[in-house]
Amino acid sequence: MSKAYYIGTFIHSLTLTSLEIVEHGTICVSNGIIQSIQRMGKEYSESDSTLPPTTLLEKLGHDDTTTNPPPTIRVIPKNYFLFPGLIDTHIHASQYPNLGIFGKTTLLEWLNKYTFPLEASLTDAVKAKRVYTQCVQRSLQNGTTTAAYYATQSARSTNILADVLISLGQRGFVGRCAMDSDLQPGWYRDGSPESAVADTAACVAYCKEADESGRVRGIITPRFAPSCSREAMSGLGRLLAEGEEDGLLCQTHISENKGEVALVRKLFPECSSYAQVYDVHNLLTPRTVLAHAIYLTEKEIELVKLRQCGVSHCPTSNMALGSGSLWLRRLLDEGVKVGLGTDVSGGYDVNVLEAARMACLVSRGVAEGGKGEGSKISVEEALWLATRGGAQVLGLEGKVGAFEVGMVWDAILVGADEVPVALDCDAAGMFNGVSEKVKKPKIGGKVDFFGWESWEEKVAKWLYSGDDRNVRAVWVGGELVCQK
Amino acid sequence: MSKAYYIGTFIHSLTLTSLEIVEHGTICVSNGIIQSIQRMGKEYSESDSTLPPTTLLEKLGHDDTTTNPPPTIRVIPKNYFLFPGLIDTHIHASQYPNLGIFGKTTLLEWLNKYTFPLEASLTDAVKAKRVYTQCVQRSLQNGTTTAAYYATQSARSTNILADVLISLGQRGFVGRCAMDSDLQPGWYRDGSPESAVADTAACVAYCKEADESGRVRGIITPRFAPSCSREAMSGLGRLLAEGEEDGLLCQTHISENKGEVALVRKLFPECSSYAQVYDVHNLLTPRTVLAHAIYLTEKEIELVKLRQCGVSHCPTSNMALGSGSLWLRRLLDEGVKVGLGTDVSGGYDVNVLEAARMACLVSRGVAEGGKGEGSKISVEEALWLATRGGAQVLGLEGKVGAFEVGMVWDAILVGADEVPVALDCDAAGMFNGVSEKVKKPKIGGKVDFFGWESWEEKVAKWLYSGDDRNVRAVWVGGELVCQK
Repeated sequence: MSKAYYIGTFIHSLTLTSLEIVEHGTICVSNGIIQSIQRMGKEYSESDSTLPPTTLLEKLGHDDTTTNPPPTIRVIPKNYFLFPGLIDTHIHASQYPNLGIFGKTTLLEWLNKYTFPLEASLTDAVKAKRVYTQCVQRSLQNGTTTAAYYATQSARSTNILADVLISLGQRGFVGRCAMDSDLQPGWYRDGSPESAVADTAACVAYCKEADESGRVRGIITPRFAPSCSREAMSGLGRLLAEGEEDGLLCQTHISENKGEVALVRKLFPECSSYAQVYDVHNLLTPRTVLAHAIYLTEKEIELVKLRQCGVSHCPTSNMALGSGSLWLRRLLDEGVKVGLGTDVSGGYDVNVLEAARMACLVSRGVAEGGKGEGSKISVEEALWLATRGGAQVLGLEGKVGAFEVGMVWDAILVGADEVPVALDCDAAGMFNGVSEKVKKPKIGGKVDFFGWESWEEKVAKWLYSGDDRNVRAVWVGGELVCQK
Repeated sequence: MSKAYYIGTFIHSLTLTSLEIVEHGTICVSNGIIQSIQRMGKEYSESDSTLPPTTLLEKLGHDDTTTNPPPTIRVIPKNYFLFPGLIDTHIHASQYPNLGIFGKTTLLEWLNKYTFPLEASLTDAVKAKRVYTQCVQRSLQNGTTTAAYYATQSARSTNILADVLISLGQRGFVGRCAMDSDLQPGWYRDGSPESAVADTAACVAYCKEADESGRVRGIITPRFAPSCSREAMSGLGRLLAEGEEDGLLCQTHISENKGEVALVRKLFPECSSYAQVYDVHNLLTPRTVLAHAIYLTEKEIELVKLRQCGVSHCPTSNMALGSGSLWLRRLLDEGVKVGLGTDVSGGYDVNVLEAARMACLVSRGVAEGGKGEGSKISVEEALWLATRGGAQVLGLEGKVGAFEVGMVWDAILVGADEVPVALDCDAAGMFNGVSEKVKKPKIGGKVDFFGWESWEEKVAKWLYSGDDRNVRAVWVGGELVCQK
């Protein structure tokens, strides 16, 4: 039995619109599960921070500091805080090497020109391993503790991604892209509806066998409606129903782009909407993750809500591909589950924080574009989406995404440097060559604290300027998987 | 006399839509001025890169490698390239500590709530020095070799910014905010139109005396029309006319936000437009930099063009404050000079590359919003705006922003790591614990090269994922001012 104490500032979402900021807290984690949370008031004084950690713990009423093995004690330094691990509800690991490469394309040309050739090349196992390893490492380094991945059409390449996840310790869902329609070139598609379904089932089974802990799981992944035959979608719908007891998830794309919506209308004239295409094949369930959802009609939103599907909002990608702007507030007001996705490589950053930041910015454009001030997403809301929202979407509500007793310790340690005071400055502020004397920052990220900020302001600074450098440690299931 | 040779890949803008990529080049810089540029073809073979630098130079026809003192020779490594220094045409150094702090405000509330209190506090010289030093260092570390700064209303604090620039070696323009209207609170404004003009003149004179080289210069800065009385603007217009021979510049804001445009209409009913307010006070000249310019009417664009003013496009700020989206293509098609501004702290990143990236993204939104595909800004265009475009706006065309004989050596060295191949991988790609064996990257930024990219793709990756880490060295006027 392993036990760990984290003593210091922790911050997490309480509700969509509120963060809890506990400046002096103690969280006890036992075998990866949060066992107790202490919010310290008067019993803690600033001078306590200088006590030896075991003495401090004893003073705080913990009598298990001398167990064998002794608990791990980690005191969080000034200007650092613990935060729930970030959750990426939509990322294509196979497209990672194309980050930033779009030309001037929009979705459908982009798939053919950049995406399919790269994905197809990952049947080369050595290349696949190199690409996936880099992508998952980068994701972890940015503080993503859970991610829902798309791999490629190839089952073998998809299973390599599962291996990489297991090895690197990230919690995740690994989806083989089912894609048997002739939207895809002959050299990159499933040979038949049957093989599309069978290969998907095989990949789901592979994960189940490879990782008994269930940290890494398969996920049913019809690429998107135009990629799939009706037969393939029906078969995948059956697999999804069969996996209900196991909590098997499904992910796909919906209404990302106007051209795509028109294409779906043309390809599936029997359906009254894009959402209905999935619904008739039993792919809309409480375990379904729909990426983008920009152009859903009122009726489609009703259907998505009725089926309790989750939506993955991918603002970075939507901007980069010129797909359009999701009116996020409408979905939230309707009570649709929403999380954030980086959508690499439609999105150009593997960092969920970038998606959170862009969700704020895009929402301001939506507000300014006529939907009104109420459409703006706040810092608190963006961070909720990046944690609790994502957990809801991926069926992990109550397990990860916040700090509550009984939840899993999927957490990150965030920190930033304080800007040095120019010590060689006289009272008149005369300049005496400060540049040589400024100390090298310890962390070196972009976030600069001056020391006068409130914690709310520090969090806002982190949201707008944070990058991988500010994520100093990452835990998944209580295990330290990344430390800088 | 100092001489330096740079041997390797260099890239710069030739025209708005084209980059010149010279894989094997030699640039000779003498006393900070580019003396010669060699584009090597067949006379250079890959094996030459292993020659001792002096031998290589001699082979390339340079016979001055044995002068005393010997020339500095810098061979650019693989996956690195030289690029012109970035140019920030609009940045408020005094607002730097507020990066990322907006709440849900838009422009006018934001000024009152966050901006004015911070700026006013910089009459504390020690605080001013700390803030400015951090801002200018960050700007340099991101590869900005020239920046047009707003300081504060205080002449003393403004002069401290000039001192910091001179000490750190960045080329720049330092503006004291002239602001005598009662839009500002009594505790933060000029006491009279006369003092607004006199203090501005004093700051311009201070720079002229403090930096004889002219690298750091004063700039006339009426904050924006609502901040100023008619008398102050007229007086500043006279200063600007008097400074024509010296090439004195002027900077201000225009049409950033709909509320602001309405306010200007109300405050200046005698003028037919916002642009005309500046024009009647003789503030629109070829030496004038107008930030934002989102809501200019056709007639105003005509006037701006007639007066040959430059526009500073600040897409990051415009998104963050929900100001709106500039239709950049229209200005470019009209032949208006345009550069990029970070607009810290309306913008949340001191990096011009972020502004360039956002210019691409915002333009896609503009295209999607109805202005058509032609509105999209390409990677090449964004980088032109960040260099040559900025140089035009700041009256430095032909001096900085590109690599041409006779131009000043304001340059950056850009590099990225190549993703390691998982050496422990067998042919089947079986995973054997690669995570332990992956080497720590040398540079560690977000840009990942896999080795198969074209130079065009490498540049796109840099634009979309680059940050300060990829800027490995920065030269201003031939002088190495930042080296990592």
